[in-house]
Amino acid sequence: MTKTKYPLSEVYRLLEPGPVVLVTTARAGRANVMPMSWHFMMEFVPPLVGCVISNRNYSFETLKATRECVINIPTVELAEKVVACGNASGERVDKFKAFGLTPVAAARVRAPLIAECYASLECKVVDGKLAAKYNFFVLEVVKAWIDPAREHPRTIHHQGEGVFIVAGRTIHLPSPITSRA
Amino acid sequence: MTKTKYPLSEVYRLLEPGPVVLVTTARAGRANVMPMSWHFMMEFVPPLVGCVISNRNYSFETLKATRECVINIPTVELAEKVVACGNASGERVDKFKAFGLTPVAAARVRAPLIAECYASLECKVVDGKLAAKYNFFVLEVVKAWIDPAREHPRTIHHQGEGVFIVAGRTIHLPSPITSRA
Repeated sequence: MTKTKYPLSEVYRLLEPGPVVLVTTARAGRANVMPMSWHFMMEFVPPLVGCVISNRNYSFETLKATRECVINIPTVELAEKVVACGNASGERVDKFKAFGLTPVAAARVRAPLIAECYASLECKVVDGKLAAKYNFFVLEVVKAWIDPAREHPRTIHHQGEGVFIVAGRTIHLPSPITSRA
Repeated sequence: MTKTKYPLSEVYRLLEPGPVVLVTTARAGRANVMPMSWHFMMEFVPPLVGCVISNRNYSFETLKATRECVINIPTVELAEKVVACGNASGERVDKFKAFGLTPVAAARVRAPLIAECYASLECKVVDGKLAAKYNFFVLEVVKAWIDPAREHPRTIHHQGEGVFIVAGRTIHLPSPITSRA
């Protein structure tokens, strides 16, 4: 899958619908990957993404220490790998090898992109003040990549306990949502 | 549509997939409603929901002053009303009347539930410290309601500029996502 650059001002279009993502981190030459659903858009430009990562996860400490990660967006074809990544610990398993995911060097961060995901967002932690209280990080997307060949990526949306909603049809409504609501 | 109580520990199942929601607020006997997509789960129990509401929105000031709201989850049948609510300002329009939405008294907050939405979550602001910097509020869900007759609610997921993904089929994968990822 070949990815090209994606405009930062359009990043909200990828994350706002609420897909499960795969977060990659790297420390001391070792990369890890974990699924995440507790994330949301906080600003259009520069694109800010808020996320909560449990401090019981191996990725929490790496993100806190390195202040870098990549948010990769998988589609339904990868659903079983997403679940497998959530059921293994990066402390003991090289999940890229174990689950057949391909790391690709990022441009601005040390954590790798995942080749099999249709989009990847390189992120830096810009605010970790609420990490202690809520495990909450504010990330800035500093570089974005997308596979332009994927017109209708079937993202998956976690409903809890291994149940996922697959993105269905798209509807276009005449007027955009604007402000002052 | 008749709603019954929904367990607070299961609230994440409703919001984690990332649906557009309708947020109701009320001040001085006047209720308002706005669509929101910038929200996410922060904790299972008590259920905490983080959200960003632009300070250009009329609802921002009401939420800040009253520290109460209701998150209502609409389905695709309401898509046009959702967009209409986003294109009108609560400063000038009674959106319940204008768009045919039915307010129902909540149990724990002054903002109303919306009868036409399949689920409603009564919320109180528990942390507004980042409201000044990011327009960010942490809400606690204090009471939850659902229409038990709706088995596969077709939620809508905003992709920007009036484009929505409709929730499609559901897949069940054998193992749940657990911790230490």
